[in-house]
Amino acid sequence: MRLSKLLPFNDARIKISEFQKTSNIEEIDLKEAHNRVLACDVFSYHNSPSFDKSAMDGFAVIAEDTFGASQNNPLKFKVIDSIGAGDFSKKQINNNEAILIATGSPIPSGANAVIMKEFTSINGNDLEIQSQVTPHENISPKSEDIKKGNKVLSRNTYIRPQEIGLIASAGYSKIKVYKKPKIKLLVTGNELVEPSECLKEAEIINSNQFILSSMIESCGADFEYSHIRDEFDETKKAISESSIDFDAIITTGGTALSKGDLVVDACDYLGKIIFHGVSIRPGKPAAFAIVNDCPVFMLSGQPVAAMGQFDMFARKFLMNMQGLDYSDKIVKRKSQVKIPSTVGRTDYVRAVSDDKFTRHVLNRGSGIIRSMVEANSYIIINENNEGIQEGDIIDVLFFNSMNFNR
Amino acid sequence: MRLSKLLPFNDARIKISEFQKTSNIEEIDLKEAHNRVLACDVFSYHNSPSFDKSAMDGFAVIAEDTFGASQNNPLKFKVIDSIGAGDFSKKQINNNEAILIATGSPIPSGANAVIMKEFTSINGNDLEIQSQVTPHENISPKSEDIKKGNKVLSRNTYIRPQEIGLIASAGYSKIKVYKKPKIKLLVTGNELVEPSECLKEAEIINSNQFILSSMIESCGADFEYSHIRDEFDETKKAISESSIDFDAIITTGGTALSKGDLVVDACDYLGKIIFHGVSIRPGKPAAFAIVNDCPVFMLSGQPVAAMGQFDMFARKFLMNMQGLDYSDKIVKRKSQVKIPSTVGRTDYVRAVSDDKFTRHVLNRGSGIIRSMVEANSYIIINENNEGIQEGDIIDVLFFNSMNFNR
Repeated sequence: MRLSKLLPFNDARIKISEFQKTSNIEEIDLKEAHNRVLACDVFSYHNSPSFDKSAMDGFAVIAEDTFGASQNNPLKFKVIDSIGAGDFSKKQINNNEAILIATGSPIPSGANAVIMKEFTSINGNDLEIQSQVTPHENISPKSEDIKKGNKVLSRNTYIRPQEIGLIASAGYSKIKVYKKPKIKLLVTGNELVEPSECLKEAEIINSNQFILSSMIESCGADFEYSHIRDEFDETKKAISESSIDFDAIITTGGTALSKGDLVVDACDYLGKIIFHGVSIRPGKPAAFAIVNDCPVFMLSGQPVAAMGQFDMFARKFLMNMQGLDYSDKIVKRKSQVKIPSTVGRTDYVRAVSDDKFTRHVLNRGSGIIRSMVEANSYIIINENNEGIQEGDIIDVLFFNSMNFNR
Repeated sequence: MRLSKLLPFNDARIKISEFQKTSNIEEIDLKEAHNRVLACDVFSYHNSPSFDKSAMDGFAVIAEDTFGASQNNPLKFKVIDSIGAGDFSKKQINNNEAILIATGSPIPSGANAVIMKEFTSINGNDLEIQSQVTPHENISPKSEDIKKGNKVLSRNTYIRPQEIGLIASAGYSKIKVYKKPKIKLLVTGNELVEPSECLKEAEIINSNQFILSSMIESCGADFEYSHIRDEFDETKKAISESSIDFDAIITTGGTALSKGDLVVDACDYLGKIIFHGVSIRPGKPAAFAIVNDCPVFMLSGQPVAAMGQFDMFARKFLMNMQGLDYSDKIVKRKSQVKIPSTVGRTDYVRAVSDDKFTRHVLNRGSGIIRSMVEANSYIIINENNEGIQEGDIIDVLFFNSMNFNR
C-alpha cells in the first residue's frame, strides 16, 4: 500500500491525460455510423435541395397571376401538366397556367410559387384559385439546407440521427469514423464466483464483470473480459498479454494486503506506475500504470468504489480516444441536505437530483450497490470544501450526462 | 388530404395510447441485459455481503483491546493467522490477538473491528497498533446491501450498469426482460436514391432511412428497412405483410398529392385510420392507423418533420412497449428570444438550450436537417400559447432526455 502519499484528484486526472491516445480511423457503412464519431470533415457533394422544390402538395403558378384571388373572387387557371414525386415537368408555365405538383418535386420553369391544394378547386383541367400567394411562397429554394462544396460537419462530431441524415444528404454512403476502443477487463479475486443460487463460505458473486463491462459499453467501447486469480504470475501474464492486444486495460480488485497489491505490483514489474492512491471518496486506492504503452486503470474490488473510479478516471480517456473532447457536464443544484466532507479530499457523493434540487443517497458504504441503483447523479465536493450546508448551490453530475450518447 | 379537420396534439397522443402494446417477455443472459427493461421483480437469493466482511486491508481485532492506543502509546498484539481474498480463518480471536485480513474477507470469529494497516507495524508475528478503533469499525455487516428474500428491483426497471450488478449479486445469471420491439421502417418515394456523388434531375437522397432507423435504435428497438415506390399495390402489399410480421410500422412520405395520399389510402383500405392531420408544427400531415392490430405511424417525407413526428408520437409507444412508463422530461428554461406561435397549434421548435437558457435555431424550414444538427432540444409551445416573449420561462425537452438510456 502506498496510500500515505495520496495524490490530489485533479493531479491524478492530469497525469492520465498526459497518456491520452486516439483510436485509429476506419471507413464504415453509413448505416453503421449512428453513435460513432466522425474522423473527417464532411464536405457536401450536393446542393440540398438540389433544385427549387415544392414544400407543399398544390399547384405551381406565377404568383403575380394570383393577386386579388379570394373565396369571393376565384381566379381561373389552366392545368397543363402534373409532377409526381421523383418526377419533373419539361413544360414552361405561362400566365394563368398551373402545374399540379407533389411535395418535394422540382418547381417547373416559369413558376415562382405553389398554392396549396386546399385553396383550389379543380374540374378536369380547369382550376379555380381562391387565395393569393406571394412570390417564393411554398418553395424550398435550391441549396437552402446545404451548399455544394461547403463543410457541413466537422471531424470529431458525435453522430446522432440528424448528423447521419446530413452525411447522407451530402452524398456519402460510407464514412470515416474512429475505431471503437478495444478494452480488456480483468477482474481479479479468488473469492469471486459467477451468479448462482448457492454460495460457499467466503464466496462473493462477481458483479464487477457485469457492471464494468456495461460501463465500458456506455463509453462506446468494446470489451473482452477475463477473471484472474490472485496469483502474481497469472496477473502478470494477463496484463502483459493484454497490453499488446488492447487499447487499454481496466482491472478491479487484486489489492489483497495479505498477498501484496498484486495488480499494482504486476504493473510495477511490467511497466511504470503513474500513481497509486488518490485523495478521493470513494475509491482511494485507485491506481494507473503504463505497460507497453498501454494504459492500465486499476480500480477497487468494491463495486461502488470501482464505478466511481471508472467515472472519475477511465470514462474521459475512453471517450476522448474516439475523438471527443469529453468534459463532465457539471450543473448547479440546490442541496436539500447537509453533507460533511474533509478538506483535501474530493468526494463523489451518490445523489438523487432533479432539475432544481439535489440530496445524497443515505446508505453510502462503498460496497452498497443499492446506493448506486437509488442514485441518478453525483454531488461533487471538491478538495477545498469542508462540506455542504442545506441550501448551498453545489456541483452535480448526472449519470446519463456521462454516457457516450449524451 | 384530410387536413381540414386537424386534431389537437394531445388528442392525437391519447388516441395512440389507446392502442399501446407491451412486448413479450424473454429470458436472456445477464451479460446481455444492459440497456434492457426488467420484466419481473427480482428477489435476492442471498444476503450481500453474505458474511460480516472487512472493508479494509488490515488486522481483525477486538476493538476494546485497542482503546488507548496511539503513536506515543502503541499496544502489542500477536498475529495468529492471515485471511486472503476468497479465504476464511477457522481460528478464534482472543484478547490481544490479531488476524491479518484482506478487504472483502470474512471477519474471523471473536473479532469486532479491523484496524487499517497504516496504523500498525509488524515484526514477524508481533504487531504494534498505534491507533484505536471502535467496535464495528471497518466492517461491512452481513446483508447491509441486500437481505436474502427481499425484493431488490421491480419489474419495468431500466437496467443500467448498477442494476445489472445488483441482479448479479442477487444470484441471477439469466434474467427476464421485455423483447425488443421489431419495427418495420418503410420509406416511400420514387424520387429517393441512395447517397452518391452524382444525382439525376429530381432525384433526392434518401436520408430518412438513416435518420429514422437511428431514431428507432435510440428507443431500444430493432428495425428492418424497405424502400417502396409510390404505387398503391406495392404500398398496400408492404404494409399488409409488415403488419403481420412486426410490432409496429413506421412510414415516411408517400403522401404525393398528384397520386393520392398513397400510404394513408393503403392503410384506410387495409385497416382503420385513427387520425390524419394534427395541429402541430412541424409535421401537420402526421397520421396513425391500425392494420391487423399493428400500429402504423405515418410520418412526413421531410426529414425534420419526420423527426418531430417520431418524437411526438412514435417514441413513447416504442419505449412503453418495453415496459417503461415513458413521459417527456420537460424542464423549464428562460427564453433568450421572442418566438411567435399560433393559438390552437402545438410547436416543437428546434432549440439550443443549456442548464439555464434556451433560444430557437434560426433556420426552421422543415427540410432543413442542418437545423436539427445545430439543435440539442425542442422548445415546446403548447396550443394555448400565442408565442414566447424574451425572458419567459418556457418548456424545453432535451433530445438526449428522450433516449432509451436517459
